[in-house]
Amino acid sequence: MPSLSVRHLLGIKDLTREDIELIFETADTFKEVINRPIKKVPSLRDITIANVFFENSTRTRLSFELAEKRLSADVVNFSSSGSSVKKGETLLDTVNNILAMKVDMIVMRHSSPGAPHYLSKHIKANVVNAGDGTHEHPTQALLDAFSIREKLGSLEGKKIAIIGDILHSRVALSNIFCLQKLGAEVMVCGPITLIPKYIQELGVKVEYDVRKALQWCDVANVLRIQLERQQIKYFPSLREYSLYYGIDKALLDSLNKEIILMHPGPINRGVELTSDAADSQHSIILQQVENGVSVRMAVLFLLAQMNQ
Amino acid sequence: MPSLSVRHLLGIKDLTREDIELIFETADTFKEVINRPIKKVPSLRDITIANVFFENSTRTRLSFELAEKRLSADVVNFSSSGSSVKKGETLLDTVNNILAMKVDMIVMRHSSPGAPHYLSKHIKANVVNAGDGTHEHPTQALLDAFSIREKLGSLEGKKIAIIGDILHSRVALSNIFCLQKLGAEVMVCGPITLIPKYIQELGVKVEYDVRKALQWCDVANVLRIQLERQQIKYFPSLREYSLYYGIDKALLDSLNKEIILMHPGPINRGVELTSDAADSQHSIILQQVENGVSVRMAVLFLLAQMNQ
Amino acid sequence: MPSLSVRHLLGIKDLTREDIELIFETADTFKEVINRPIKKVPSLRDITIANVFFENSTRTRLSFELAEKRLSADVVNFSSSGSSVKKGETLLDTVNNILAMKVDMIVMRHSSPGAPHYLSKHIKANVVNAGDGTHEHPTQALLDAFSIREKLGSLEGKKIAIIGDILHSRVALSNIFCLQKLGAEVMVCGPITLIPKYIQELGVKVEYDVRKALQWCDVANVLRIQLERQQIKYFPSLREYSLYYGIDKALLDSLNKEIILMHPGPINRGVELTSDAADSQHSIILQQVENGVSVRMAVLFLLAQMNQ
Repeated sequence: MPSLSVRHLLGIKDLTREDIELIFETADTFKEVINRPIKKVPSLRDITIANVFFENSTRTRLSFELAEKRLSADVVNFSSSGSSVKKGETLLDTVNNILAMKVDMIVMRHSSPGAPHYLSKHIKANVVNAGDGTHEHPTQALLDAFSIREKLGSLEGKKIAIIGDILHSRVALSNIFCLQKLGAEVMVCGPITLIPKYIQELGVKVEYDVRKALQWCDVANVLRIQLERQQIKYFPSLREYSLYYGIDKALLDSLNKEIILMHPGPINRGVELTSDAADSQHSIILQQVENGVSVRMAVLFLLAQMNQ
Repeated sequence: MPSLSVRHLLGIKDLTREDIELIFETADTFKEVINRPIKKVPSLRDITIANVFFENSTRTRLSFELAEKRLSADVVNFSSSGSSVKKGETLLDTVNNILAMKVDMIVMRHSSPGAPHYLSKHIKANVVNAGDGTHEHPTQALLDAFSIREKLGSLEGKKIAIIGDILHSRVALSNIFCLQKLGAEVMVCGPITLIPKYIQELGVKVEYDVRKALQWCDVANVLRIQLERQQIKYFPSLREYSLYYGIDKALLDSLNKEIILMHPGPINRGVELTSDAADSQHSIILQQVENGVSVRMAVLFLLAQMNQ
Repeated sequence: MPSLSVRHLLGIKDLTREDIELIFETADTFKEVINRPIKKVPSLRDITIANVFFENSTRTRLSFELAEKRLSADVVNFSSSGSSVKKGETLLDTVNNILAMKVDMIVMRHSSPGAPHYLSKHIKANVVNAGDGTHEHPTQALLDAFSIREKLGSLEGKKIAIIGDILHSRVALSNIFCLQKLGAEVMVCGPITLIPKYIQELGVKVEYDVRKALQWCDVANVLRIQLERQQIKYFPSLREYSLYYGIDKALLDSLNKEIILMHPGPINRGVELTSDAADSQHSIILQQVENGVSVRMAVLFLLAQMNQ
């Protein structure tokens, strides 16, 4: 049976193209499963997974929890509020304590970039990075690419524009790595203050005009303006952002072409996307959410296989 | 097999008398189940239910969760703290995201009257209203009526007094609708500042003297003084309320008749009820809680049947 | 089949030596179970357990939850935030409500000493004390003694020093009772301001010099400095505490003897223990955590047997 080249899913950077394709083929199977009346498989019946979230999250935590339950794993949730973290315990002690209770896999979200990488060097359980600061969010990138593949058949040679706040986004970096490994061309587009200087070294195009970016691409992945992360003074105000970078249905229709509209959620309706764009026939936003569960089932299943 | 006339349980207002009786007969069966040593049935084994609570609740959330687990459903909990709601996502986006993950049923508590009704018009899953602001709390009304039926055999012609803060209570309105549909006579009793003006249009008696209300009724359903909702200046103070409307065992005994004492909880002991009244032989307060699980099992089971 | 002499686990004080030994033998079996690939047993399949935590806790709540799930119990979690407790409900009403929903067992943490004892007198379900203020924490003491027994074969005649903040620790008191019942000699060691006056009446040695305590003992159980509980003015500062009572690997090695180092966690690294001590070959800190799950499975299983 084919297997992954890694024991942890820390970032897309570490995966080979074959790893990504194996995850997609496995997710295809699980997507069939969860569309049957009986949505569960017994694959991880004897596996205990801890969801360790040091930062809030709705959809990611819920999506992982449903993926785990549909694989029949035993699930325990741990969030930083109500925990020893407040009592001054180190991250490694917290996680080692959880693992000493015979937990097989850790799904972790943390505000510090690199936290799951550090962990993975010191513990035996498989670690899945569910977002580390502004660094990587690998399962999001996988479900995004999986959703494009579902619509277009393949990523090879496709043009993907990532639009919005590239600087504060962990989704952008993971997406760039994933799309490039699958043979797509990537452009980032946003206000100059929200595009990091190192981005061109990653081999992506940079565009400041959203209309040009939309004209160029097959797929527009519109990121959320991360209000809660902004601390820059000369950042365009929300009103300015919306005026120059907001996408509405009229703009999409005026392109006179097929275009796929994506968003990792949660949407700020009226800021980066108007409602008529988000709910238009171009949008595959809810398919992304649906695919998230299958892709996460695939990741958890394949990592569990590594231990056997 | 008989089925409900509705696909959602939004409020008692939408139910027919036949619906309510079907829920009660189904709850009878489940009450037998949960009093057996083996408390579970496999009825909803392939159903995923999300408890989406935008407002805090102990007993209601726990009661639903136990009902769901005893039906063997897969359960995920979502509360507003720690969620995208804080990040500015709309209610509909939040719920559509949850549903895209193949959730079959939504049990929702929300502080805005009408929130579950709005939802039900835009989504495919069944919605159960677990309390919407000061509007309805239909499962509470059903379990209250079920508990009276258990004691008195039938609601037909029985006299029920709802006593306390009618204005801020979602329990009052749902109870009035439910009791009237089942043929009971309803009176509301409380300080004039806590009785809404529209109440008489609902065909209920109004009484300001608690002793007279108790003399009239077969069943007294005493509501909680919703301290956390009060913002009215000339409202009686807690001390005044307790003095004029508080019910103690001496008062109940002085009536020289059978009377059933109910309370939806949590009780403010010493305010609306003294301890000797709450714990007296008149009280069926804990039976109400017990019946809550059976009644909620019945509602969830019957709504799930609608999809088959 | 042998059974416990108590229906609740409120404190070690109430247990006989036979009770403790029965718990240990049962835990031996469960420890084998959870080290198998299939970590679950169906023993409590028809039991519902509520974890009722009025105080935050990571490891204790998680350890109980895993113990319950590995026994196949149905688990519901209740924490004070988001609960009726904030609405002014009494402890007994809260718990009676939970029990009315057919919950069989209550695992409770509460900030008030005696809270679980009070409860146990008024309810029918089995109560397990998961820590009541600065009073008892019986499952911690049981897992500590179980871990020593695992290393040394027996507690009989062994010398155990409990080092640190004895005054504010619920772990100290439960440990003293447990170790003495099993025939061990107990010493407490710490700054004079952190040793309660009544301690000598319990038949333990008192020592203020940590080196002398370490020289005397076979096992050093180092407690956490409970920063969040300190309110005493003349208490040594953290820096002073660490200087006079902090234990590092050099100190342990200089003893020229076998010594077992324990800590109930969470560790304040650099305060009561340095990292090189906590992670040394002397330390069985993570084994304690691992044994916690087996010991709690044994307690829950044996209490459930009492009801049959």
